[in-house]
Amino acid sequence: DLVARTTGVCSMMRLPVLASPEGLDAAFVGVPLDIGTSNRPGARFGPRRIREESVMLRTVNPSTGALPFQSLMVADLGDVNVNLNNLQDSCRLIREAYEKIVAAGCIPLTLGGDHTITYPILQAIAKKHGPVGLLHVDAHMDMADKALGEKLHHGTPFRQCVDEGLLDCKRVVQIGIRGSSMTLDPYRYNRSQGFRVVLAEDCWMKSLVPLMGEVRQQVGDRPIYISFDIDALDPAYAPGAGTPEIAGLTPSQALEIIRGCQGLNVVGCELVEVSPLYDPSGNTALLAANLLFEMLCALPKVTIV
Amino acid sequence: DLVARTTGVCSMMRLPVLASPEGLDAAFVGVPLDIGTSNRPGARFGPRRIREESVMLRTVNPSTGALPFQSLMVADLGDVNVNLNNLQDSCRLIREAYEKIVAAGCIPLTLGGDHTITYPILQAIAKKHGPVGLLHVDAHMDMADKALGEKLHHGTPFRQCVDEGLLDCKRVVQIGIRGSSMTLDPYRYNRSQGFRVVLAEDCWMKSLVPLMGEVRQQVGDRPIYISFDIDALDPAYAPGAGTPEIAGLTPSQALEIIRGCQGLNVVGCELVEVSPLYDPSGNTALLAANLLFEMLCALPKVTIV
Amino acid sequence: DLVARTTGVCSMMRLPVLASPEGLDAAFVGVPLDIGTSNRPGARFGPRRIREESVMLRTVNPSTGALPFQSLMVADLGDVNVNLNNLQDSCRLIREAYEKIVAAGCIPLTLGGDHTITYPILQAIAKKHGPVGLLHVDAHMDMADKALGEKLHHGTPFRQCVDEGLLDCKRVVQIGIRGSSMTLDPYRYNRSQGFRVVLAEDCWMKSLVPLMGEVRQQVGDRPIYISFDIDALDPAYAPGAGTPEIAGLTPSQALEIIRGCQGLNVVGCELVEVSPLYDPSGNTALLAANLLFEMLCALPKVTIV
Amino acid sequence: DLVARTTGVCSMMRLPVLASPEGLDAAFVGVPLDIGTSNRPGARFGPRRIREESVMLRTVNPSTGALPFQSLMVADLGDVNVNLNNLQDSCRLIREAYEKIVAAGCIPLTLGGDHTITYPILQAIAKKHGPVGLLHVDAHMDMADKALGEKLHHGTPFRQCVDEGLLDCKRVVQIGIRGSSMTLDPYRYNRSQGFRVVLAEDCWMKSLVPLMGEVRQQVGDRPIYISFDIDALDPAYAPGAGTPEIAGLTPSQALEIIRGCQGLNVVGCELVEVSPLYDPSGNTALLAANLLFEMLCALPKVTIV
Amino acid sequence: DLVARTTGVCSMMRLPVLASPEGLDAAFVGVPLDIGTSNRPGARFGPRRIREESVMLRTVNPSTGALPFQSLMVADLGDVNVNLNNLQDSCRLIREAYEKIVAAGCIPLTLGGDHTITYPILQAIAKKHGPVGLLHVDAHMDMADKALGEKLHHGTPFRQCVDEGLLDCKRVVQIGIRGSSMTLDPYRYNRSQGFRVVLAEDCWMKSLVPLMGEVRQQVGDRPIYISFDIDALDPAYAPGAGTPEIAGLTPSQALEIIRGCQGLNVVGCELVEVSPLYDPSGNTALLAANLLFEMLCALPKVTIV
Amino acid sequence: DLVARTTGVCSMMRLPVLASPEGLDAAFVGVPLDIGTSNRPGARFGPRRIREESVMLRTVNPSTGALPFQSLMVADLGDVNVNLNNLQDSCRLIREAYEKIVAAGCIPLTLGGDHTITYPILQAIAKKHGPVGLLHVDAHMDMADKALGEKLHHGTPFRQCVDEGLLDCKRVVQIGIRGSSMTLDPYRYNRSQGFRVVLAEDCWMKSLVPLMGEVRQQVGDRPIYISFDIDALDPAYAPGAGTPEIAGLTPSQALEIIRGCQGLNVVGCELVEVSPLYDPSGNTALLAANLLFEMLCALPKVTIV
Ligand SMILES: [Mn+2]
Ligand SMILES: [Mn+2]
Ligand SMILES: [Mn+2]
Ligand SMILES: [Mn+2]
Ligand SMILES: [Mn+2]
Ligand SMILES: [Mn+2]
Ligand SMILES: [Mn+2]
Ligand SMILES: [Mn+2]
Ligand SMILES: [Mn+2]
Ligand SMILES: [Mn+2]
Ligand SMILES: [Mn+2]
Ligand SMILES: [Mn+2]
Repeated sequence: DLVARTTGVCSMMRLPVLASPEGLDAAFVGVPLDIGTSNRPGARFGPRRIREESVMLRTVNPSTGALPFQSLMVADLGDVNVNLNNLQDSCRLIREAYEKIVAAGCIPLTLGGDHTITYPILQAIAKKHGPVGLLHVDAHMDMADKALGEKLHHGTPFRQCVDEGLLDCKRVVQIGIRGSSMTLDPYRYNRSQGFRVVLAEDCWMKSLVPLMGEVRQQVGDRPIYISFDIDALDPAYAPGAGTPEIAGLTPSQALEIIRGCQGLNVVGCELVEVSPLYDPSGNTALLAANLLFEMLCALPKVTIV
Repeated sequence: DLVARTTGVCSMMRLPVLASPEGLDAAFVGVPLDIGTSNRPGARFGPRRIREESVMLRTVNPSTGALPFQSLMVADLGDVNVNLNNLQDSCRLIREAYEKIVAAGCIPLTLGGDHTITYPILQAIAKKHGPVGLLHVDAHMDMADKALGEKLHHGTPFRQCVDEGLLDCKRVVQIGIRGSSMTLDPYRYNRSQGFRVVLAEDCWMKSLVPLMGEVRQQVGDRPIYISFDIDALDPAYAPGAGTPEIAGLTPSQALEIIRGCQGLNVVGCELVEVSPLYDPSGNTALLAANLLFEMLCALPKVTIV
Repeated sequence: DLVARTTGVCSMMRLPVLASPEGLDAAFVGVPLDIGTSNRPGARFGPRRIREESVMLRTVNPSTGALPFQSLMVADLGDVNVNLNNLQDSCRLIREAYEKIVAAGCIPLTLGGDHTITYPILQAIAKKHGPVGLLHVDAHMDMADKALGEKLHHGTPFRQCVDEGLLDCKRVVQIGIRGSSMTLDPYRYNRSQGFRVVLAEDCWMKSLVPLMGEVRQQVGDRPIYISFDIDALDPAYAPGAGTPEIAGLTPSQALEIIRGCQGLNVVGCELVEVSPLYDPSGNTALLAANLLFEMLCALPKVTIV
Repeated sequence: DLVARTTGVCSMMRLPVLASPEGLDAAFVGVPLDIGTSNRPGARFGPRRIREESVMLRTVNPSTGALPFQSLMVADLGDVNVNLNNLQDSCRLIREAYEKIVAAGCIPLTLGGDHTITYPILQAIAKKHGPVGLLHVDAHMDMADKALGEKLHHGTPFRQCVDEGLLDCKRVVQIGIRGSSMTLDPYRYNRSQGFRVVLAEDCWMKSLVPLMGEVRQQVGDRPIYISFDIDALDPAYAPGAGTPEIAGLTPSQALEIIRGCQGLNVVGCELVEVSPLYDPSGNTALLAANLLFEMLCALPKVTIV
Repeated sequence: DLVARTTGVCSMMRLPVLASPEGLDAAFVGVPLDIGTSNRPGARFGPRRIREESVMLRTVNPSTGALPFQSLMVADLGDVNVNLNNLQDSCRLIREAYEKIVAAGCIPLTLGGDHTITYPILQAIAKKHGPVGLLHVDAHMDMADKALGEKLHHGTPFRQCVDEGLLDCKRVVQIGIRGSSMTLDPYRYNRSQGFRVVLAEDCWMKSLVPLMGEVRQQVGDRPIYISFDIDALDPAYAPGAGTPEIAGLTPSQALEIIRGCQGLNVVGCELVEVSPLYDPSGNTALLAANLLFEMLCALPKVTIV
Repeated sequence: DLVARTTGVCSMMRLPVLASPEGLDAAFVGVPLDIGTSNRPGARFGPRRIREESVMLRTVNPSTGALPFQSLMVADLGDVNVNLNNLQDSCRLIREAYEKIVAAGCIPLTLGGDHTITYPILQAIAKKHGPVGLLHVDAHMDMADKALGEKLHHGTPFRQCVDEGLLDCKRVVQIGIRGSSMTLDPYRYNRSQGFRVVLAEDCWMKSLVPLMGEVRQQVGDRPIYISFDIDALDPAYAPGAGTPEIAGLTPSQALEIIRGCQGLNVVGCELVEVSPLYDPSGNTALLAANLLFEMLCALPKVTIV
């Protein structure tokens, strides 16, 4: 703590910025893309602003007893280069970058970027680990087939993953789902695939510790990926979301969810959909930085005391 | 969903903009007035901004099973013209416009505007339906007699209504009331009229489903009007309110209240006091758009499956 | 002037919103696209916000004596639908929409959207009129060949047009060019094509009336298109620009440019690159609305008294 | 300079706040009213925010040599109480308050408030001084007869004044006029009354020192009132204006105008139409505070060295 | 209520501004200092903005039955002058100012300012009352020894107080503590001093009425100081905090804490760390104004009915 | 140009971030300090935000023909660590850091930070070069002796430098000075030292090319330092300034000043006083980034073609 909070070029948690994942156990990676959004843009600046707010984070988690930096080699790998004018090409660039990270045995903790990026990331993850379980925290299921003729956008990543066999569907849980829709039972398809869908209204004013006990049962000890869309939280806590929906989760529930993953075989994590352009106080990015730190603390090899 | 969210001149939920209420079961109507406010202005831009954020809404309510557009003819009637320099004249213009809407058998769903507008709207409603019951969700009782010599402003609409016999006082419920006041029992007068006054502090950290069961009992099946002041909600959820008060309701409680009206004989609804000038993220307007959609879903003739 | 400024669903200058260009002399058209940008997004909301601020405009231009609405049938055609996740498909949608508008003999006045949209618009214009002259007001030449492998983005539209023969290169003028660059003579290619390139630094603290005299000489009486990028202006006047550059033009110079087009054979106009997300006061959109009104006043058949 | 800039309850220039004008040569007075506006509200917070930014002002004017506080007894009289729900009643309250100020021989320097307030202020001024000359700096002439049936709003004050004979019309100058209008010669009526109307376009890129020489000739040594609407300035300098118009004056021109009044028989001054709600940086209020200080420096009895 | 909310130079709750504490039972005092912060500045404007938002407060507390202005002589003493370039000198100025206030028998209710100011205030308090109990509501313990070589900053005030014997450590309670840290048991030192440390996570979704029963037991009837750091609350409610931490307390819990102090021997109160620069809606300041009013209502001699 | 603008951890102009100045001809250095300010804070975030906006800069200056990166080894040295709670200690840290940079033969281009930082930087510069000439562009002279008892703050740096003999006073020029003051001839002291003081009002609506010819004469070919306070510019162009003053310079004048330094023996440069907290669009930081690039282009050894 010998350097002022305001000092220095902003990397995630002030970690060293490295070009290669070799030798790292885990790494923060930014994906500054937002051309998969359907309404509010700005997630292209998510990684930059999350890094900025992460300067307030300290190294130890007194709530869980996690000592991440004593257990893991961690760095900031900077951003994946993206093509801001071509979403398909961006997906290719992301997939190739993540294949290298994953091949090096490094667990990626992604700073999004809109939710489209999950599709190429999971392609890379599944290439190494096979179909993975999924903990998906979001206001939306992101299981649309196509919209406006496009298979690739931020409403479709998990449909793409299911269609390509990247997910172990019996080990998929979606938490926080809500909002108006185009059909009366929008959850039917997901549930028919084996997903557990937990609605936001079933979480209102409740601790999610019991739910996470069940989730841990369901996902077991095989590889699981955590995909956290900031819009899972109520817009009061996360005004800077690309597609906010009212009556969402609280930060304490978000912590219960992530802390509830301790002991699972997490092979990758992400925090997506932060749009700083709708976040004048910077507090959405601060929340995202904290959730990414908590995900780091929940990784498999982290020492807990 | 074949049109991009950002496309088009913004009507409420992208409904057609019509000039006449004839043939409509229900209609959204804007009242862009804010010269009834006592402190923060800006509600004159409420209708415009609520319409903008309503582009994210979809057509079906999976939580309640409501299919509003399969059951009702609904349109956006645009805005009532108001006189931004004369509050009494504005009230006349509003009353005359609503008399026509109500006479056509069309249920108005109003996008306010400050709370003063409720007085002329209820004049029009009562002209057709006689004295009506009232579900009034607000941080304030809006029952002042006069302020600075004025009978008409956003702190007096319900006093005007009581004085003119527009309300069926035994069927009036006020929910969310709080804040400092000028007298120690500011609720006495309301209660003496027969109102049920539910304080915000009696709602803290509670589901309002049981309360709404009692409310449904109290109001029965005769006509009722829903008046929702966005400041009923905590300023965290609704920063863009004209007269925010701390420690208010949550969006999940707001949904419980509105969904609890299903089956009642609702003859009109309104969402008032959204001031976009204090809402940099637009999320107060988004909340308002959602609550108006939920009111639409709770209207009498809506098919529920 | 009998309707309050705040009243009503916002169309451009409160004109009627029509679905078809038939019978119109000119029409405002929105293109809510921004996935051609390279840095700051938000132009997708340009049309919406320009329409909002246009409510302050009145019908007559006392400076030029133009009476546009007494001479022309004008309407707001709403927005072209775009594909926010696929730039090539958006270009196709724009081209097809403009082909219909132009075929109807209606002069389009476009509310952008990022500058990429000029390419498909000029495809439609040239299909009817053949290669056209161009008055291009911008901080940038937008003549890049490719960036990141992409031929389509907001830095390339005029290169695409030149390559496809849509421009009458001897009748092309670019005004306001400035900023750092990748090569020392970035203007060489343009000038080799026949363009006149007027640097911003040659406009500093000068009236542009003499320049426009020369421009009128150069472009003659054959068809000309006006493409106005809001970043031509200094960021002080237009903070809400996608790619602001310091030391730009002033609004009075912008008016001198547009008013200097009176008498030319203008076959289309556009105002692009307004990003409301960087324009908290709304004044960039207000400026854009005014410039579009001035373009309307400069159209060929407008009565001048 | 012994007190930190941030310290203290904000009065104008940190002057003492007094309840009575007795014994004062001049006084700052706030009029926190905005229900005379036609579009953007917020001028009700003008006086508060101008006072805040005035803490940066120092006591001497090195450009003009004015020593206002060595020559005049000056204080802050606080705000006139207004009726935010009734414009006519507000005008009465303002007129009565100013009659007392003027009767005490105190020159009022008003912090507006929308431009409607000028009418009751000039009623009070003319009651003492008879019809006065006027230097009116504004984008608009504010000479409308009625709008929406109302004689009182921020577009009519000078028409009211002319109709009541409060102005010495041959000694009226309007500077900065511009913008679209409803008729082709909107200046005809004013000029027919004897006003000199100086258009903004005749000021572009010019020093106004020569103009002010002519103005001094025209107004002579009889009483004159200065009415400065902040929208006279370009929105780049004054984003926080209620009715901004593009291509306006610059701050240096504003200083030339006010400094050009030195030696005139100024009996009152005002700076109106600052809306802090459109001024996120506070710099419009800072500009207003400076212009009010310059007006103070230009008052008749101020020592110049 | 005869004066418009927007009228007048802003003192706290519109109380008279006095220069001397003589004869007062309690007084609001501002300390516009923020050079003790470690990251986000702006608390120097806290007092100014809290006063502004306090205009919405009324005189009576219907929830607790408190009639503060019928029981106590209360005024606004304005701001302590501070040295914005020298923290040690500021502490001296604050201590001296508070010694005078406390000596006069006046209970100070402080509008901060960053948390550093508590150290000199408690020096003054303890000079009169001896070591006092402390109710400290905060996300942080503020018990650091030194940071960057400095003993004085907003992370150290209570360590300074303990080291100088200003606190009765067995009667110290800290509520709301949370966040990442540098050591796994950051609470050990505090607890070893006798403090009760209540973590935010032990408050989630709970009423704090039972906790406050225990607190009242612990602190007894000897003098106690209330130090409320606005960051104790979740950033959703208090975006304008200098050092926000996620997953904090709610406003209803804050009210339960303060109302739970009724009957205690409170000798001083403060609300610190409001930074208006991160609070575009002003609602953090509004919350602070309300909490200060509630503290006033909880003072020993206030009549409760 | 193969990397998207939004990609990557933000260094100045995307230059490599190095820890040592060895081998560099010039380097950008941040000094994130703002506790020398007297009113608006936030310059602590100046370096961060200037780096962010610098991503839009390209490598060549077509206006001057400068090819800085072909002539000089340039890097970003990150930020000097500062003590945000102790201004004197910060000055020591800055001086020590700059002594190392200067000793390595590297020309520092500083991203401020408030203007206080110039004093320790010039101590380091003068230690190597002896008393230097100064081109000081600012609204203020920053020659105060003491304020509130403090010799160190952002209003005193040049007085400190004169008193310590760090400046070659006959070769000092101050441009842009304006605003109210405490004495009628605030320039007397400076001029008595030999400074040339050029008032803003002598620059209004003029090209500064002639002035810069005279300045080049005056400063000759001995070492000179460029200190550019962003408040020299009008607040329209630089809203995010710590101490804005109305009626300032324009960006084109700023470019004329800096470009007019080409050929001088510049030994260091700085751009200070950018406060991102008052710059919602980011355009003040963008302007600062451009001016720093122009300073780089004007350095002695830069190839001009
Ligand atoms: Mn998602
Ligand atoms: Mn989502
Ligand atoms: Mn209400
Ligand atoms: Mn209310
Ligand atoms: Mn362009
Ligand atoms: Mn451009
Ligand atoms: Mn006016
Ligand atoms: Mn005006
Ligand atoms: Mn604290
Ligand atoms: Mn804290
Ligand atoms: Mn300076
Ligand atoms: Mn300065």
